[in-house]
Amino acid sequence: MRDYYAESLALHQKLRGKISISAKINLRTTDDLALAYSPGVAEPCRAIAENPSSVWDLTIKNNTVAVITDGSAVLGLGNIGTEAALPVMEGKCLLLRKFADIDAFPICLDTQDTDEIVETIRRIAPVFGGINLEDIAAPRCFDVEERLQDLGIPVFHDDQHGTAIVVLAALYNACKLYKKDIHEMKIVINGAGAAGIAIARLLTDSEFDPENRQPVKDVLVCDSQGIIHHDRADLSPRKKVLLKYVNPENKTGTLKDAIKDADVFIGVSLADLLTVDDIKTMADNPVILALANPDPEIMPEDAYKGGAGVVGTGRSDFPNQVNNVLAFPGIFRGALNVRAKRITPRMKLAAAYAIARCVHPDDLSKDLIIPNVLDKSVGWKVAEAVMKAYVPGE
Amino acid sequence: MRDYYAESLALHQKLRGKISISAKINLRTTDDLALAYSPGVAEPCRAIAENPSSVWDLTIKNNTVAVITDGSAVLGLGNIGTEAALPVMEGKCLLLRKFADIDAFPICLDTQDTDEIVETIRRIAPVFGGINLEDIAAPRCFDVEERLQDLGIPVFHDDQHGTAIVVLAALYNACKLYKKDIHEMKIVINGAGAAGIAIARLLTDSEFDPENRQPVKDVLVCDSQGIIHHDRADLSPRKKVLLKYVNPENKTGTLKDAIKDADVFIGVSLADLLTVDDIKTMADNPVILALANPDPEIMPEDAYKGGAGVVGTGRSDFPNQVNNVLAFPGIFRGALNVRAKRITPRMKLAAAYAIARCVHPDDLSKDLIIPNVLDKSVGWKVAEAVMKAYVPGE
Repeated sequence: MRDYYAESLALHQKLRGKISISAKINLRTTDDLALAYSPGVAEPCRAIAENPSSVWDLTIKNNTVAVITDGSAVLGLGNIGTEAALPVMEGKCLLLRKFADIDAFPICLDTQDTDEIVETIRRIAPVFGGINLEDIAAPRCFDVEERLQDLGIPVFHDDQHGTAIVVLAALYNACKLYKKDIHEMKIVINGAGAAGIAIARLLTDSEFDPENRQPVKDVLVCDSQGIIHHDRADLSPRKKVLLKYVNPENKTGTLKDAIKDADVFIGVSLADLLTVDDIKTMADNPVILALANPDPEIMPEDAYKGGAGVVGTGRSDFPNQVNNVLAFPGIFRGALNVRAKRITPRMKLAAAYAIARCVHPDDLSKDLIIPNVLDKSVGWKVAEAVMKAYVPGE
Repeated sequence: MRDYYAESLALHQKLRGKISISAKINLRTTDDLALAYSPGVAEPCRAIAENPSSVWDLTIKNNTVAVITDGSAVLGLGNIGTEAALPVMEGKCLLLRKFADIDAFPICLDTQDTDEIVETIRRIAPVFGGINLEDIAAPRCFDVEERLQDLGIPVFHDDQHGTAIVVLAALYNACKLYKKDIHEMKIVINGAGAAGIAIARLLTDSEFDPENRQPVKDVLVCDSQGIIHHDRADLSPRKKVLLKYVNPENKTGTLKDAIKDADVFIGVSLADLLTVDDIKTMADNPVILALANPDPEIMPEDAYKGGAGVVGTGRSDFPNQVNNVLAFPGIFRGALNVRAKRITPRMKLAAAYAIARCVHPDDLSKDLIIPNVLDKSVGWKVAEAVMKAYVPGE
């Protein structure tokens, strides 16, 4: 097997930056200079001063997204500092370029204070048409995102919603494959961090099914202390709020109790938490999305031994890779195209449906419920769906 | 004559942004993704976490400059707001790309408060190898720049120092042309804003002449109230400080008094302030740098009628265009190459000498004391000179 770590380090040493800034005009004559810069540039400046919204028509704003971190939750490496997060941020910018033709620029903030992050993003927002928050630790990531929803441009924490959207796409197709009704599924989410909470919220959102207006009813969320329920005294405010939407019967117990008879296990937690025998306690043909990286909560082989109907992981070397890159490029593309002010639940759900539809029903199988991450048509289909789901003023 | 304003507006409408972000890697295979992004990217992240200075070797930081404004003094248009400044900022990024191969990104700050500007720049600094402050009104521009000199990367307000450096280059060559000693020149600067003060400081800096350690002795600065002198009660703190360096004989009077017998007039003020008769009161073959834009303090034709030895303006349609683009790209290129922590007076003076030397002594004439702004070799020569002038630790 290739040593991705050593090869990636060598690649980064060679490139010294994975993105660069290009000029869209040549500067060969004094006329070129006079049009691109002084004195001609005064005219677009004046136009924007007179009509501020024309900044969308005359500058980079219409196609530019900031990828912003505070370095507090970088990959699985934790709080390694904001400079150390920069290779990931550049990578994200690269993905936005390649999968959605977006100009994305990384910003690594030298603060981990919520108030300071929020005010700094407000102050640097004018150049951008969207903000992608990245690798910010929970619960700060929730606060930062919520407080910026009035900014006038989409502020989207991909680690939460990107994951949730792709998980939902996988569930749609798994249900289609086994002819199950997603509304009737018993779903267990293990991990109550940024991704776990976002998945639970998306599944239980009242917008969940635009036709029926009914969300998934039976969702349990577990953290390291087991099922999250009303009688626990150790819950954070975020987990308490979550109880408005999940665990309506106030079930108690461990993760293993939770998954008994469950149809779906979604792990955004730690490696090797489940065994073959655990899977055997679940409902028929359960859907196992074991997303801990790089080592999943259970290896696909073992999940299938326990009777799993379909297994997805976060890894590219197994089938059904749940990877945010299927969601965020198209979501920002669509949002920029319509100049959305925020990414609404409706837009997120539309993105999930669109990703699911990228696998043709005839091709669905236990090894193909999610399109390939390298399929560059996905971003454009997601963008189109997001644009359709956009309601001006929302 | 072409209508640069209308043409520039049309160009901006067509381009919708003059710069874009490019990918330096293709993403065609899962291996490409694994190296540029997850999981391989964890390794450069870890390397930077262990050794923070390696961020210079593994990311865009080594070649990336932020062009930052608060929109308070945009071109000659004044305080038109931060969004309206964006076309200028993009233009500056374009120039840094084209003249010095630098990746520059514009940041338009949604604040005009000095403290907030300073703290915001500190917080977003980690991604950048240098900061170019742009179109920030005086005196705020001085405070912001001074307070950020400990940031660890160069923070350079081009409207001050870029202009000062090119003016100095012009003076070197004008003196060479007329075989005058720059130290003996009587110099009058009209305008005590960002550029005027920076010109005065550079001319009178104790580093001015590295061989003789002597600055230019006879410099007068005028503002709208005439010569700045010790007995004026209306001086701002900045102008008071300036009196440590200029007007040693405490002369008083108007601009017209100041220029009597002067060798050099440098205008960074307003159109049409001087007449043919005013120039006649000056010393023989005076140097007239009438930089008000778009209409100079006196038109070259009139200055020559009054006996001027050489005339420069800010305009591209007259000879001797004093344009910052001769200075700032090479200065940042040189500073990035040596990872300088700031732009020292020594580096600025080296840049001015280098620009002057770009005109071969045999080619010097009243119509050629400054190289052409489109001469792309200037930036590289400036960079080389700046690198040589860099003293580690300064």
